[in-house]
Amino acid sequence: MMMGMQADVKEIVQSGVELIDATLDRLLPAETVLPVSIHKAMRHSIFAGGKRLRPVLAMEAARMVARSSEMPRGVEELGAALEMLHTYSLIHDDLPALDNDDLRRGKPTCHVVFGEAIAILAGDALQTQAYEVLARLRCPATATVEIVRLIAQATGTVEGMIGGQVMDIESEKAQPTAELVDAIHRAKTGALIRVSVVAGGIYAGADAEDARRLTEFGRKAGLAFQIVDDVLDVTQNSEQLGKTAGKDVASVKATWPAVFGIEQSRRDAAKLIDEAFAEIACYGSAAGGLKAVAAYLVERTH
Amino acid sequence: MMMGMQADVKEIVQSGVELIDATLDRLLPAETVLPVSIHKAMRHSIFAGGKRLRPVLAMEAARMVARSSEMPRGVEELGAALEMLHTYSLIHDDLPALDNDDLRRGKPTCHVVFGEAIAILAGDALQTQAYEVLARLRCPATATVEIVRLIAQATGTVEGMIGGQVMDIESEKAQPTAELVDAIHRAKTGALIRVSVVAGGIYAGADAEDARRLTEFGRKAGLAFQIVDDVLDVTQNSEQLGKTAGKDVASVKATWPAVFGIEQSRRDAAKLIDEAFAEIACYGSAAGGLKAVAAYLVERTH
Repeated sequence: MMMGMQADVKEIVQSGVELIDATLDRLLPAETVLPVSIHKAMRHSIFAGGKRLRPVLAMEAARMVARSSEMPRGVEELGAALEMLHTYSLIHDDLPALDNDDLRRGKPTCHVVFGEAIAILAGDALQTQAYEVLARLRCPATATVEIVRLIAQATGTVEGMIGGQVMDIESEKAQPTAELVDAIHRAKTGALIRVSVVAGGIYAGADAEDARRLTEFGRKAGLAFQIVDDVLDVTQNSEQLGKTAGKDVASVKATWPAVFGIEQSRRDAAKLIDEAFAEIACYGSAAGGLKAVAAYLVERTH
Repeated sequence: MMMGMQADVKEIVQSGVELIDATLDRLLPAETVLPVSIHKAMRHSIFAGGKRLRPVLAMEAARMVARSSEMPRGVEELGAALEMLHTYSLIHDDLPALDNDDLRRGKPTCHVVFGEAIAILAGDALQTQAYEVLARLRCPATATVEIVRLIAQATGTVEGMIGGQVMDIESEKAQPTAELVDAIHRAKTGALIRVSVVAGGIYAGADAEDARRLTEFGRKAGLAFQIVDDVLDVTQNSEQLGKTAGKDVASVKATWPAVFGIEQSRRDAAKLIDEAFAEIACYGSAAGGLKAVAAYLVERTH
């Protein structure tokens, strides 16, 4: 990728992030709404500096399927719902009973600031709020129902996000194998990234063939993002990372570098992104935004 | 209510409970599906002897609006989703960081059997599964979207279930007032009971006026159920109740009897049920099932 394009992509991502942040601010209850503690806790974690990966992918997928230079109207609300679901999973993952993390993205985690009870309920509430936002989407009701169904599946227990969290907890006792690491990644983070891309497409009117291509693109790109995350966890220090570095390796967590090494992991991520791009090559120039954003996010250094 | 009718009502409720239990068994992943621990935990709490109050009310409201002796086809799936949401809130409410209850309906609570991490995720997963079930309902997509929106609102932070849980936690420090007890009951348990009735009606094609009447009926009946629950907590021992009796009073929890006394609470519950019945009097004999079930549930002794 050339330098000039890099700068453009950074701008695209940045403006997407700003739109998502403004939308989240509009859709979440204000900190002054009763009971205030829960709304403060929800906003603390939502506005803790997330990369907004899932919303940006959903929005670019929608633009590709619409074959338009404009974002389909209201798609940022779908993006906000996806970010609420991602954040709910992080809040619960960080709890003392799960990963027991005090720091995330350089900020104290939800339970450290608000206590465990409010953190549990803030996670619950972000999941609930996500479905309320989905039920208000400005697309046909049939598309909304399909989006709700796919998102619930992708965040559920059977090969979805919660299933991945359970596998991750239970794998701490065992030496990680390639199959286990792959299964955890696909479920814990892969499924929500994949469905973000697919839901963006459905919002914009995707047919079955569009949905199939987006599913494959999302599956491959999602795994690449997770591998890059794992590599960064090993190669960077805590200050750059905003969380306790090397934690995954220290506790023999099932990560890609732990099984395949850092160099092989980097090659695997690059290969997956190439394969993901091949899935959407048929969209030609309409796929430019989605490809550029995906490449940018995989090439990131923090 | 005459003895003969009591027996009939008991049969109606019992057959409704059996249909709901069979539907929950069909809609939840089997205990053998990977990862097995989360599915065992979800089923442990779902099949711990709940009264299935919300599903039965939803089904009877649907039958009333349809003006049919038959249940509208598939409405038991809506009922199952409502029971999943109720159970998720109980699992999280019982956690050590919240109410710290070891016993519920005479059985050890989810975190006692499966540990805190799996209990947190089992609650999360029942919420997720509820929305997947809603997204598969056999009613028009526009009705499904309205049901999802109303349920998410009723279980959320602003005058909904989670908001009520937060108020309940925070009220433990203060002497309960009538206003606070009323606000907590309306949000914590009232909102989901109310929306169960309304969602049942919408499933069966309720218009705006039906929805308004069902909202008022559900609001009043829901408060009556909660008052009866509070009274039973004071007047019964732990064995009859299946949980630690008198716990609410011991910790100066905001309950109806704590503020108004037991006799006044009983009168309030009876008055609320009469007012609820007046709201649906216009449906004539079609309202018979809903009224009988509501009366039965308020007159229960455990």
